[in-house]
Amino acid sequence: MQNPFFKNNGPFKISEVLNILNLNNVNFDVNRNITDIKDLFTSNINEITFFHSKKYKDLAKNTKASFCLTTENLKKELSKDCIPIIVNNVLVSTSIVAAKFYPESIHDNFDNNVDEIKATEYKNKIRFGKNVLIGKNVKFGNNCLIGHNTIIEKNVSIGNNCSIGSNCIIRNSFIKDNVKILDNCVIGKHGFGFFPNDIKNLRYPHIGFVIIQENCEIGCGSTIDRGSMSNTVIGKNTFLDNQIHIAHNVKIGENSIIAGQVGIAGSSIIGNNVKIGGQAGISGHLKIGNNVEIGGGSGVIKNIADNSKVMGYPAKSIREFLKDNK
Amino acid sequence: MQNPFFKNNGPFKISEVLNILNLNNVNFDVNRNITDIKDLFTSNINEITFFHSKKYKDLAKNTKASFCLTTENLKKELSKDCIPIIVNNVLVSTSIVAAKFYPESIHDNFDNNVDEIKATEYKNKIRFGKNVLIGKNVKFGNNCLIGHNTIIEKNVSIGNNCSIGSNCIIRNSFIKDNVKILDNCVIGKHGFGFFPNDIKNLRYPHIGFVIIQENCEIGCGSTIDRGSMSNTVIGKNTFLDNQIHIAHNVKIGENSIIAGQVGIAGSSIIGNNVKIGGQAGISGHLKIGNNVEIGGGSGVIKNIADNSKVMGYPAKSIREFLKDNK
Amino acid sequence: MQNPFFKNNGPFKISEVLNILNLNNVNFDVNRNITDIKDLFTSNINEITFFHSKKYKDLAKNTKASFCLTTENLKKELSKDCIPIIVNNVLVSTSIVAAKFYPESIHDNFDNNVDEIKATEYKNKIRFGKNVLIGKNVKFGNNCLIGHNTIIEKNVSIGNNCSIGSNCIIRNSFIKDNVKILDNCVIGKHGFGFFPNDIKNLRYPHIGFVIIQENCEIGCGSTIDRGSMSNTVIGKNTFLDNQIHIAHNVKIGENSIIAGQVGIAGSSIIGNNVKIGGQAGISGHLKIGNNVEIGGGSGVIKNIADNSKVMGYPAKSIREFLKDNK
Repeated sequence: MQNPFFKNNGPFKISEVLNILNLNNVNFDVNRNITDIKDLFTSNINEITFFHSKKYKDLAKNTKASFCLTTENLKKELSKDCIPIIVNNVLVSTSIVAAKFYPESIHDNFDNNVDEIKATEYKNKIRFGKNVLIGKNVKFGNNCLIGHNTIIEKNVSIGNNCSIGSNCIIRNSFIKDNVKILDNCVIGKHGFGFFPNDIKNLRYPHIGFVIIQENCEIGCGSTIDRGSMSNTVIGKNTFLDNQIHIAHNVKIGENSIIAGQVGIAGSSIIGNNVKIGGQAGISGHLKIGNNVEIGGGSGVIKNIADNSKVMGYPAKSIREFLKDNK
Repeated sequence: MQNPFFKNNGPFKISEVLNILNLNNVNFDVNRNITDIKDLFTSNINEITFFHSKKYKDLAKNTKASFCLTTENLKKELSKDCIPIIVNNVLVSTSIVAAKFYPESIHDNFDNNVDEIKATEYKNKIRFGKNVLIGKNVKFGNNCLIGHNTIIEKNVSIGNNCSIGSNCIIRNSFIKDNVKILDNCVIGKHGFGFFPNDIKNLRYPHIGFVIIQENCEIGCGSTIDRGSMSNTVIGKNTFLDNQIHIAHNVKIGENSIIAGQVGIAGSSIIGNNVKIGGQAGISGHLKIGNNVEIGGGSGVIKNIADNSKVMGYPAKSIREFLKDNK
Repeated sequence: MQNPFFKNNGPFKISEVLNILNLNNVNFDVNRNITDIKDLFTSNINEITFFHSKKYKDLAKNTKASFCLTTENLKKELSKDCIPIIVNNVLVSTSIVAAKFYPESIHDNFDNNVDEIKATEYKNKIRFGKNVLIGKNVKFGNNCLIGHNTIIEKNVSIGNNCSIGSNCIIRNSFIKDNVKILDNCVIGKHGFGFFPNDIKNLRYPHIGFVIIQENCEIGCGSTIDRGSMSNTVIGKNTFLDNQIHIAHNVKIGENSIIAGQVGIAGSSIIGNNVKIGGQAGISGHLKIGNNVEIGGGSGVIKNIADNSKVMGYPAKSIREFLKDNK
């Protein structure tokens, strides 16, 4: 799939990519065109991908990408049809290449290219408050409400019967039918993703988006960051309370209930029918199974199996937590 | 007392109520009118109430309501003058009946019925910033300030000498004299209250309001949800720091001090002269006594007696906490 | 240095200061003028300072202030050239005197004295969104962006190449070059500083400001309070994620990385190259060394030495934390 929101400045010759990475002495045809950069799973022929951890070796074996940024150690795991490009730091190189393809995905300055809604085609289609601003590439379904001072920046698709509150800011997001977003939310901004550098940290591209599936509710003052190389997803009929923070690349399943002030760090995956109590925190890159219950205030720092009930910091089985704290 | 904010669509014949609950075969006069739905304590003759837990049996014995939604097990605890209506799930049935009386208390869409303050009677009475919006049924005392972009939605009463910051959104609230509300607060929205349902969660009515007593201060970015069947109350001279979340039905006493990022879950009752350190969390339905001190970061999961000092997760006496963590 | 933001109503005769503190019977010349109130370190001849804890005895020995609010017990530690003024409660007296010099530093009502940016001299200098408001004594460098609905209240200096998001509120702040502030932040408001009082808490002055050094990034929905008698400082190239709260007088070093929903309580000092995980909290008046790593969700309640890695609540060495939680 082509990226629906960010303009792809490619294709580029692979020689151009090697140039910005200061690489030479390669033993393959550097005149081939590459058309896009994607992850191991979604990339295709004539595209470039990246492979930085053994965790992904199964995906690496089956990638359809033509080129892959990787290391000397990992290259043997790669599909025979994919040409490895050896670099020192796969993620830094990936971010440099992604920035070449998608320069507009790095800096989330305010969207200067908006109109007051009453000057747009939407003025007769939806009900809206005062001072509502609408960017380019925005679509609305039927029967939507947009509250006062809300800014729908560029690249937003909103379904039918959605109710957006006041003072919200949304960009780079797919919002499906019957979703309710309460006041003061910021949805679709880039995540907290950068490479530390003593002079000026190097931000990496965020070419993903936020997907909020049907029937969800998002509480006041919540922030949901869009993904970097994948998407941030809130599953169907999942309800979030106030002041929640969902970091980039997080995926939450269906029918989950997340109470106030919870934070979920980058790239964690939460199952279906999960209940998370207030102020709980979930570290990054974890997998929380289906039907899990996490007590309020818990700090989850490892994966949680399906059907578990956990509590505490670090979170353990609720039985153990109660025994330890009798 | 009549609900001051939500229009009561009643009275209804009790037969109409039985109908929406799919009940029949009752052995009482179904032509009687009922005028309102309230809790056990505040309801009166010709009104309907609900009774779902033994905890409330003393209130049930003395209720003045004419009808009560309850269970086969609990009905024997009910006042002789109150006719039990037996249902499978008291809270679901209560929410269905409350929705019939107060359909507007369920969905907090943005208030479409506001005017710019400079077009209202208040323009000479208070000092206000740019782009201030005022809904219906709003009252101001003397000498008030309302910051830029703030939206006072419907059903708000503000006392004398109040200072409201910029970018705030307030509805369904009584704000007494000398209250200060800092920027970016959302006050009076419905709470995180619904019955989970795999297709689309069922929101229940929130017919309560928020009461902020004299001399309080509410910090930037805080959210205070209104009550469902009762009210959310902040007592006199209680100060809240930034980014605090107060859930529906919470009651906080006088002269309390609550530091940044604290969260208090639904229906908990906090005493007078309570000090709560930053990021502490208090679970729902708890009772925290007077003069209690709760250390920063604590997770309180049971009732706390008057004059206690607690800390930790789960919170225990501070002496014990320090001993365990030497 | 003269306070750049708050008008100093002095000089006052020392007799006037004694009067508002209800002091008399002093044995020094009460006709001398005092020109300002500052802390022990920065105060100078003909100024008044305060000394309330033995912790500061080295500073007290070397202060250049002519007068000092202090106690009978502490006065012997004071420089011979500084005249002690003995009071019951040093901090309350300090706040009363500071309020006399700087009455406008106490109440942070909304800034009524703003203009729409398009009516100001800045309209051709910077790129700005709709409904941007600018107060008095505001300066901008070159090449700045200011998002929609943002309010730059009085007393703000913004450097070159800064990007401010939408819905922000900023006052009393120095923002240096290349700083990025994301949406919905509130920066420069007074801290949560007051003396409890059963009728109406007594707010003390906040005459400090917020300094955000070069290359910093501040995430969405964050709040950074200005200092009371000193400043709140975010060091160069330090990045803050979303929904962070930085209390008054906090100083954070350079190249630090602070993840979402972290809270740092008043007057704590954080070193350089510090990494703080999501939702961690740091109590007030602590010193966190350089190169420290604090795990997500930790509660830090004592000083942390340079180069330490800590985790837990209370935070301890990460080795110990993992051993205790095997």
